[in-house]
Formats: sequence, structure tokens, C-alpha cells
Amino acid sequence: MNISKKVAEMQFSPIRKFNPLAIKAESEGKKVYHLNIGQPDIETPAVFMDAIRAYQPKVIAYGESGGLPSLQDAIIGYYKKIGVDLERKDMIITTGGSEALLMAFLCVMNEGDQVMMAEPFYTNYNTFAKEAGGSITPITTSAEDGYAYAKKELLEKSLTPNTKAIGCITPGNPTGNVLTKEDMQVICEFAAEHDLWIIADEVYREFVYDGRQLASFGQMKGYEDRVILVDSISKRFSACGARIGCIISKNADLMSGAMKIAQGRLCSSTIDQVGAAALYSVPQSYYDDVNTEYCSRRDTVYDALMKIPGVTCQKPGGAFYMTVKLPVDDAEDFLNFLLTEFEDNGETVMFAPASGFYATPNIGKDEIRIAYILKKEDLVRAAELMGLGLEAYNKKLGK
Amino acid sequence: MNISKKVAEMQFSPIRKFNPLAIKAESEGKKVYHLNIGQPDIETPAVFMDAIRAYQPKVIAYGESGGLPSLQDAIIGYYKKIGVDLERKDMIITTGGSEALLMAFLCVMNEGDQVMMAEPFYTNYNTFAKEAGGSITPITTSAEDGYAYAKKELLEKSLTPNTKAIGCITPGNPTGNVLTKEDMQVICEFAAEHDLWIIADEVYREFVYDGRQLASFGQMKGYEDRVILVDSISKRFSACGARIGCIISKNADLMSGAMKIAQGRLCSSTIDQVGAAALYSVPQSYYDDVNTEYCSRRDTVYDALMKIPGVTCQKPGGAFYMTVKLPVDDAEDFLNFLLTEFEDNGETVMFAPASGFYATPNIGKDEIRIAYILKKEDLVRAAELMGLGLEAYNKKLGK
Repeated sequence: MNISKKVAEMQFSPIRKFNPLAIKAESEGKKVYHLNIGQPDIETPAVFMDAIRAYQPKVIAYGESGGLPSLQDAIIGYYKKIGVDLERKDMIITTGGSEALLMAFLCVMNEGDQVMMAEPFYTNYNTFAKEAGGSITPITTSAEDGYAYAKKELLEKSLTPNTKAIGCITPGNPTGNVLTKEDMQVICEFAAEHDLWIIADEVYREFVYDGRQLASFGQMKGYEDRVILVDSISKRFSACGARIGCIISKNADLMSGAMKIAQGRLCSSTIDQVGAAALYSVPQSYYDDVNTEYCSRRDTVYDALMKIPGVTCQKPGGAFYMTVKLPVDDAEDFLNFLLTEFEDNGETVMFAPASGFYATPNIGKDEIRIAYILKKEDLVRAAELMGLGLEAYNKKLGK
Repeated sequence: MNISKKVAEMQFSPIRKFNPLAIKAESEGKKVYHLNIGQPDIETPAVFMDAIRAYQPKVIAYGESGGLPSLQDAIIGYYKKIGVDLERKDMIITTGGSEALLMAFLCVMNEGDQVMMAEPFYTNYNTFAKEAGGSITPITTSAEDGYAYAKKELLEKSLTPNTKAIGCITPGNPTGNVLTKEDMQVICEFAAEHDLWIIADEVYREFVYDGRQLASFGQMKGYEDRVILVDSISKRFSACGARIGCIISKNADLMSGAMKIAQGRLCSSTIDQVGAAALYSVPQSYYDDVNTEYCSRRDTVYDALMKIPGVTCQKPGGAFYMTVKLPVDDAEDFLNFLLTEFEDNGETVMFAPASGFYATPNIGKDEIRIAYILKKEDLVRAAELMGLGLEAYNKKLGK
């Protein structure tokens, strides 16, 4: 009576596994600046709770497995504005982008199959791949190369006979790397040449900076049949706790497979869908304001971190993460120190160790992921605490 | 570029696949009595929406992967009353009972493994088993035997070298069969003898009639380590569209595996959890009233159906389903007739064909599942329509 091999082999979320230490520190009165999780402090637009408060059903009933038509139509309207024409049948509303990813992986992978992805990548992809009986093949990238991977030769090196798809997170988590239209073209051609699906996780789509233009694999002409879009309201509308995402594809076989899975689990939350439909009514100024805010947070935290001796980082072009190299051997040990031993005026800082974001063993042990989701003065203080913590940690180690 | 074998082999939900025909009939002005889905018309207690309306966070944030502590504590309180002592670590809040089942299957099955279950069983188990890379081995039961399966010899016949668990839905969906404490003892001993997990789906726990006592595998002393409870608020509180369930086990390895999966998908809906926590505050009279109502609905629909020539059925002891044998060769064809050709005063009736609830091919083709979730006058009319429909259908076939 053992647990299954695939679950035994899964990892705990490196983003969440230090939570107990943080909770303990906080219960002892310490203030912890959380840069460890992509939970923005930007307010969820009020229309979300307004729509839910106005919803007065006598029975909170199952919705359609594919999603509430009102939400589907709101999403169709959103995509129309970015030049992607969808019908309801091209879309299933999911329980967060997480469920959309799991559905995509279940639909494309048999036992032992692989999805190739640029590493470092959002660590929970490993969990979804394991659940589907497969795994992730890494395309190793580095800060020095700007985390670029849309290069035919590099992609071909990671291809195996069992590769069924290429997964692209753009803008990227945890690097902030943004694919251009030209990059997407390279990836589409590579996928077509090797008959691969493209799983495009674009939940940070609006968060691109420095004049970069929003780009989506959904806009790539001639490749509609192999593109699977994964989307979510979590980051776009700062509504992570409302578990609403969607899986989108023009491939009817894929959507038919995803619908079988969707029917098995019945439906996504009716109440969250009611709120989500309302979110898509926010004006363009909402997107613009949020973009400006994140861009300025990025600049703030980047500048502050660059002042710390020994810290290096590629300035990210999108999303709200950056991968940062620290002057330590083991970022997990350093984080442990920050949460259990260190404090400055009763305060400390928390991040996500980056090694869990790599599929290749033993890379990234000196790297961390930072989510710049706090307001600027908090980011400045968090970076200051990082600097003070590094000083104290290396002093303790006798460095 | 194909979809995976496991997804290709999955079935569409036999409960939902006739929905498009029903929607078409309704759009043409026909009234359809829905006995096809376990969506009760009993009102969700008002405390659910009241708690949500009173919830005023600025940011709808991620909750803990294991669930909101307030909801966990409410569930711990509920279980205490039925003699099951739990701690927070024994439980993960899930997105409906559906996700709890998927987690359980992923945790106990490797590729090619099996879970044994009495058939007919809730059809979506096939989907969850496929997602986990395994399958369901049926223990064939019949109305004549009261769908009984807690018999050592019968269980042993279905055992294979790859059986990892026995799944029990009690009270049963779609039969309404209720396991007694003695039945549970037989199953526990069998599981211990063959080192199996017990996956106990008890989402209809309160719905037992005719003096039967609420019984739970969680109450079985000496077997705590192998029992995995699957629970949900959907049926208990008539809140199916709030996707809140839980997986419960005293086995730390199992819960550790389930937590890895839970962390991968981050958390369940924060808003739904806030509402769910409030639901557990309803007084005992709520449970009593709902029980009385369902019991009386069962009697109503059973008596009405028994008057139709050629219809046979085992009177169910619990849940709100019954499996009914009709005087037709193919219940799917009959349902198609009801939705597309038949009407009486602009009305017709819908049920779930039962063949999809069997894992053994070609059984149950003349059986249907009825959910008695409508108020009594509607159930009487639905049964009348069933009788009239059968008459018209067999006349059309020249019988």
C-alpha cells in the first residue's frame, strides 16, 4: 500500500515550501516582505465583487462544463481586440490557468512523453507533466543570453523522439523573458517541422515594458491547428484567489479531448465565473495603469538590487518576476537563515529559491526568483533587507 | 500531432452528452423535466451568499494550498459530531469532490493499475482513472441482489495483481445502495488482507432513509491508515456550483502526495471557501428537513414509476438516485426520441442512460439513472411523461 511512483517523485512547490517558516516568523511578530509568490497587492477591480454581490440565485447550481456563456462571450470580446477570432467551441473555462495546463498536458502526452521548455520555468509545470505521466525536457537558457531560446539549433538539441509539444511561457515566469513575433515565428516553424503542439501560457500577456508590443501565439497565421493557449484572470485582474482560467484551441480534436476531461470534473466555480465575466468590462485605462505600475516597480527593485555587491540580474522585459543570482552557494540555506535567524528592526524578506525552476539537476542553486508585486517603498525596503541579510549571512559563514 | 491515447479513449459524460438536444428542445419552447443530473432544486442555505457578500477583501488572493483554515476547522467540527477526529493536516480542501477523487487516483495508481468498484458506478470515475493512467475493474452487481457487493467471494473475483484500491460510493450513485457498518467491516478486512487502499466517496452521507444510520469509513477503527475519504458540500448543502470538496486521510504519506498535487494547482476558490465555511454553521434541523424531503421524493417517484408497465427498480436506501430498468432495448435511443420527437402538452422528460455507468461492455443498455431532485408535483409529472413516452416510443417501433 504505497503511493504511486509519479506522485512520490513529484516535488513540493519550491514557491510554497518555505511558507511554514514564514508563518512561524510572522507569528513571532516579525514582518516578512513576501517576494516569493506572484500574488500582487494591486486591488482586484471592484466590478468583480459587485457582480457577485448582485448575483442572487436560489440555488448555486452546476454551470456548463465548458463555462458560463456570459464569461465565454466576454473572453471572445477580449480576444477580438487583440486580433484573435474565437467561438465558444474553441474555449473551455477552467479552474485557474493551472487546470488549463493540466488539461493540455493530459491531452498531448502519453506515458513517458515529453514537453520541451526553456528553463528556468514555472516550477509547477513539473507537477502537471508528472500527473499526465510525462516529463519536461529542458532547453537550458541563461541570464547572459537574455534567456533567449527561439533559436532553431538550440531547440533541436532538446528534441527527443518522445517530444510531443513545446511549452512557452511568454512573458516568462520566472525570468520575465518576452518572445517577439519573430521569436514566435521561429518556434512555430520548428513545431511544424517536427509535428509538435505549442502550449502557449500567456497569462502575463499585458505585462510587457519598454515599448514591447503585446504578442500572442493566437495571432500566428497558419499554425492555428497546433496552438493551445492557456490564459487566466489571476494576474491580468489581480484575482488569483478566483480560480478562473481557460484553455483555447482551434484544433477540434484537442478541444474534444479537453471537453471529456472538463465534463468529468463537471464545471468551474459558478460564482467566480460571474465575477470574472464582469472583470472583462474594465476600460483600457485599467490595463495601461497596471502596466505602468509594474514597469515602475521593476525599475525600482532592479535598481535597488543592482546596488548590492555580488548580485547580478537580467532586467526583465515583461511579467512581474526576475531571476537574480546571489553571492551565496545555496539560496535555500540563505532563505532559511533569513526566516529563522535574521532580522533588521523586526523585519526580513522572503523569495523563491530558483533551483526548483530548473529541470537540469544542480543548476540555479545560487539563484532566486523575485516577484515584484509590492508597492515601491516596500520593494526598496525588501531589497535593503536582502543586502543586509546577505552581509549577515556571509559574515556568519566566515566569508 | 495526435491527442493522447488515454484522452482519446475517454468517454464524454453520459450524464451531459444529451444536453445539446435538451437545450435545443427548450429553445423551441418545450419544457424538459431534468432527472438527468444530480443538481437539486433545494435552495442553498442563505448563509452561503451572506458570507460572501460580507467578504470585503481589496485583493482576491491565493489561499493556502490545503485550504482556508476557517473552512478546515468548520469541517473538523462537522466530523467531530459523527465521531471522526481530524486535524488540519489530515485534510486538503479541493475543487469539488471531483478534484479529491482525481487526487486520490493519482496518489494510488501507477500506469496500468486498477481501482475496483461495484458497477454501475458514477461514470466520471472512468475519466479520473484514465487521467491517472489506470482503469476501473468492475464488481458486477444487479438490482435483483439489491446492488450488494460487500461479500468476500464477490470481491475476490474482481481482484487482479494490479488492483491498488477499492472504491466505494456510499450512499451509492447511481443505485442509492447504502453500505451498513457490517458491510464496511467486510470491505475493510478484504482491503487489509490484500493491502488495498479504500477510497470512500461519501458525499451523500446524510441522505439515508427508512431508519438507516449514517455510517462512514472514517469511523472504522483499525483501518485509518488505508482509508481515503472524499467529501463535498455540493449535495449536502445543495451548492453544486460552488466547487468545494475535500480529501481526508490519516495516512501521512498519502496526504503528503496529495499536498504536492495541491500545491501544483495553488488553491481552491477563495470566495467559494468563504461561503462553504458558513454552510457548516447550519443547525441539525437543516439536515433533518432535507432528509425528510428527499425520502418523500423517493417514495413519490418510486410509486409513480412502479405504475408504468414493464418498469422495474430496486427501491434505493439513500442518496437521490435510482437505477431503473425500462421496457426498451436501448435507453439512449429512447432518450433521443423523448427530446426530439415526443411531447405531451409541450412537455417531455430527460434522464441519464445507465450504460455509461457500467465498465462491463453491453450491460445496462435498457437501464437509466434518475435523480429525484425536483419537487414532488414535478416528479409525478415527469414519471407520467416517462409512461406516455414509453407508450409512444414502443408504438412507433411497432411493439
